[in-house]
Amino acid sequence: MTKMADEIGLDKNSANYTALTPLSHLMRARDVYPDYEALVYGPARHTWAQMYDRCTQLGSALKSMGVAPGDVVSALLPNIPAMAEAHFAVPLIGAVLNSINIRLDTETVAYIFDHSEAKIALVDSQFIELAEAAKAEADGQGPLIIEVPDLHAGIPVTGRHPLYEEVMASGDPTMPWHLPEDEWNSIALNYTSGTTGRPKGVVYHHRGAYLNTMGTAISWELSLHPKFLTIVPLFHCNGWCHTWLMPAVGGTIICCRDVTAKAIFDAIENEGVTHFGGAPIVLNALVNAKPEEKKPFSHPIRVVTAGSPPSPATIKATEALGFSVMQVYGLTETYGPTTECVEPASWKNLPPEERFKKMANVGVRFPMMEDIDVVDRETRQPVPRDGETTGEIVIRGNCVMKGYYKNPQATAEAFQGGYFRSGDIAVRHPDGYIQITDRMKDIIISGGENISSVEVESVLMAHPAVSLCAVVARPDEKWGETPCAFIELIEGQTGDQAEIIAFCRTHLAGFKSPKTVLFQELPKTSTGKIQKFELRVIAKAL
Amino acid sequence: MTKMADEIGLDKNSANYTALTPLSHLMRARDVYPDYEALVYGPARHTWAQMYDRCTQLGSALKSMGVAPGDVVSALLPNIPAMAEAHFAVPLIGAVLNSINIRLDTETVAYIFDHSEAKIALVDSQFIELAEAAKAEADGQGPLIIEVPDLHAGIPVTGRHPLYEEVMASGDPTMPWHLPEDEWNSIALNYTSGTTGRPKGVVYHHRGAYLNTMGTAISWELSLHPKFLTIVPLFHCNGWCHTWLMPAVGGTIICCRDVTAKAIFDAIENEGVTHFGGAPIVLNALVNAKPEEKKPFSHPIRVVTAGSPPSPATIKATEALGFSVMQVYGLTETYGPTTECVEPASWKNLPPEERFKKMANVGVRFPMMEDIDVVDRETRQPVPRDGETTGEIVIRGNCVMKGYYKNPQATAEAFQGGYFRSGDIAVRHPDGYIQITDRMKDIIISGGENISSVEVESVLMAHPAVSLCAVVARPDEKWGETPCAFIELIEGQTGDQAEIIAFCRTHLAGFKSPKTVLFQELPKTSTGKIQKFELRVIAKAL
Repeated sequence: MTKMADEIGLDKNSANYTALTPLSHLMRARDVYPDYEALVYGPARHTWAQMYDRCTQLGSALKSMGVAPGDVVSALLPNIPAMAEAHFAVPLIGAVLNSINIRLDTETVAYIFDHSEAKIALVDSQFIELAEAAKAEADGQGPLIIEVPDLHAGIPVTGRHPLYEEVMASGDPTMPWHLPEDEWNSIALNYTSGTTGRPKGVVYHHRGAYLNTMGTAISWELSLHPKFLTIVPLFHCNGWCHTWLMPAVGGTIICCRDVTAKAIFDAIENEGVTHFGGAPIVLNALVNAKPEEKKPFSHPIRVVTAGSPPSPATIKATEALGFSVMQVYGLTETYGPTTECVEPASWKNLPPEERFKKMANVGVRFPMMEDIDVVDRETRQPVPRDGETTGEIVIRGNCVMKGYYKNPQATAEAFQGGYFRSGDIAVRHPDGYIQITDRMKDIIISGGENISSVEVESVLMAHPAVSLCAVVARPDEKWGETPCAFIELIEGQTGDQAEIIAFCRTHLAGFKSPKTVLFQELPKTSTGKIQKFELRVIAKAL
Repeated sequence: MTKMADEIGLDKNSANYTALTPLSHLMRARDVYPDYEALVYGPARHTWAQMYDRCTQLGSALKSMGVAPGDVVSALLPNIPAMAEAHFAVPLIGAVLNSINIRLDTETVAYIFDHSEAKIALVDSQFIELAEAAKAEADGQGPLIIEVPDLHAGIPVTGRHPLYEEVMASGDPTMPWHLPEDEWNSIALNYTSGTTGRPKGVVYHHRGAYLNTMGTAISWELSLHPKFLTIVPLFHCNGWCHTWLMPAVGGTIICCRDVTAKAIFDAIENEGVTHFGGAPIVLNALVNAKPEEKKPFSHPIRVVTAGSPPSPATIKATEALGFSVMQVYGLTETYGPTTECVEPASWKNLPPEERFKKMANVGVRFPMMEDIDVVDRETRQPVPRDGETTGEIVIRGNCVMKGYYKNPQATAEAFQGGYFRSGDIAVRHPDGYIQITDRMKDIIISGGENISSVEVESVLMAHPAVSLCAVVARPDEKWGETPCAFIELIEGQTGDQAEIIAFCRTHLAGFKSPKTVLFQELPKTSTGKIQKFELRVIAKAL
């Protein structure tokens, strides 16, 4: 520490130092915004004062059931109130929240139960069988299951486990919290939905979760009392930390269990939604919604989109509906978004097509991040800002994970060189904006030339018959690989392979245009990411 | 630290941990907002890219002149560009910025030079003589003086010392920064303008300055690219850290050397000012500006006011001009504001007079603060939330100072009980909102009853002839003390002692009404605080 001439008496003490934690936001919301709505789901409406009490009570109950500081509590829940409550109730007893993807298979959930050593799992009635099967398959004894019924969604209750509200009722809403003595303490454990190998457990700390909320408030230019709709699953990077952010601004968390265009438009109409995040597939769903599902709105709605680069056509069509769209980019390892495509004033004067093309960049680093760069994969030096030379995105800052749980080797590899290595491939434009060209594993190499699947998809998305698409490598004797396009058509449209290939050839170099075009529904993860590994299997078998 | 079952490999490293510092905001602004205006003063207009270069160059020059990490650099400057630049240039070489109040007397400046051991002082041409005299009077050799000319303001240059731009020109704009290795490192040393005894040196760290900027962005509901006018002197709690905040949101710092109603209205017209802070006296100046000075505006302008509680009449008149006013409260020891009078939606439905009365509260804690309470002066227990029982405001959180420089005893006293003791007296309302009734030393005790000078002043401010007022204790044989009012009249008004006392009696208990009324200009500090100790001297001599 760089000292002044005399620092006697200038140490940390309880008056001038507190470990950063998003739990502070909930304490303040109870005091400052007690009567504002915190959580809305169907007929359930809780204020911030009630939210504080319920979370404390749930935490107290979990503690009584044996959860100690440092223990893991799993959640196998869609975006329902219990999931938002768990985001506070688990950390406030010093425990670590492990939100599990509800689309996972039994074997993977069993692996997570074992690896995380979860003591308790909060499980939605719909996923009780999955949890029970995983527990049976686990090597260890697995977590105690608490069943979370969802009567609003009409899910039948199994009644085979303690019920959420009854467990909560057994707790003490006045229990003092166990606040982190160190802001490096873990707050969440999120397993990556790795498409190969075992998932890795990404560990978040209280400090990073807190700083993410502060940076996101600036990025989203949040006024007080936003109406936030949970589209991004809360098991995905803890919903980009948005649930932890809401009490800081007295906002309302509006739960959305099943993500459909109708559900979103209804929430806009009924709850006055002002903000949500979602993958480009969600934007496409809004754009392609049936006329009777679409609802007009006149207030500003800000949408951040991430997961895969949205095409300029998608951004254009979404803005035409009245939404304000910004692309962000991040990974599970970075608490969600770490770059944002902030729109400089000068873009407003660009021809619309050029503007939408620029908006399809992932942009620049978030306000709380230190540095995000694109480096050559061999030399690890920054690539030139020419918009052409590709390199790997590397990330440094306080919203980068502690590391992978029980996997120091993978952690060391990920942090080699002093930055987190994202594995995503991008170019950097002269203005410093980053544009993702591909995941490392998604690059198609044809005749020795790299082809960005994102670039080809971008062209396909501009075709009037295409609703959604994905391009993967198809093994080829002559070229090594060729681009193979999978397309979901807009309802009522018919696809013509030759016509679509011809369309691509007018916008792309010949070697980049798909050689194969297939029309079918695309396999997707719960977060709307297209599962290219499944498509690769199909392409390989052709 | 509460550990998970296995934390091997989950330590801090350069990828996932950076010391919090507002310097990060400037690095990011250079990258993200390079072409947006950073600093405006008369004909000078610098972008964030230029600001970064100039600050780096100045830091490099100071380093060449012998400033080492941990050293102190003083600034005796009004709100001109050099002052904003010093806020980054000094910390970026690991040094500590000591902004000195330009209204101080020679003896006090000499004391600060000695006590801070400042190596260099940046001094505006107008204050060169003050700095020279202080240096001559100092026990030590005093700092090397760098003269900062202000040609725009027409201040004659003495030329007796190295000139600011020439010194800067000698530096290297590409010098690598010395970022804090520990966020607890000191960033600023601000001497309190204590009215008795020697001033105390309040030490800020990088962490607190950073968190203050993040919390203020939420409090002010900042959108990107605000136009911020520097009314609060930057030597006063570093201008409430607003200069450090602006790069985080790509805002523009518009310098205002001499605070007049005309200067503010001109800046609104010419620069589109959207935000500023100022003491209630500034609001009064706007309200009482001559018609030809007032300029209409149609865009939203948010004003935060602090320093002394504004009267409801002042808030009402300022809002009538079109400004949106929020009272905040803090001290030098808390980096500026730590409470804000957030307006709940329900207040909009109150009768205007009731609403303005509530807005004269200091409200609730800032988003980045942990706790602010009002405690009984004896028992140190929270006072009841009855709006009547007075106690001392105590403050806890990351934006509380490290302590007083070279004064561990005063530091220990200030932090006794685990909170910072503000010395300000307040009540707490049933909604939790805090209302300041007085500084401890400003309370008037008459016949054993406590009288809040603020309460009496609030009534006087509602009198149509009163422009500004202050009420202090006048020694009295029978009552011990009685309230004595000093009044500045609105131009063209004449004062009538008896009529004003009668007016007070219709709004206050008899013992609270002033027994003495004097019409005269009020002595003020540079920050617009009325200097009650001078008035007490007058009252005592009556």
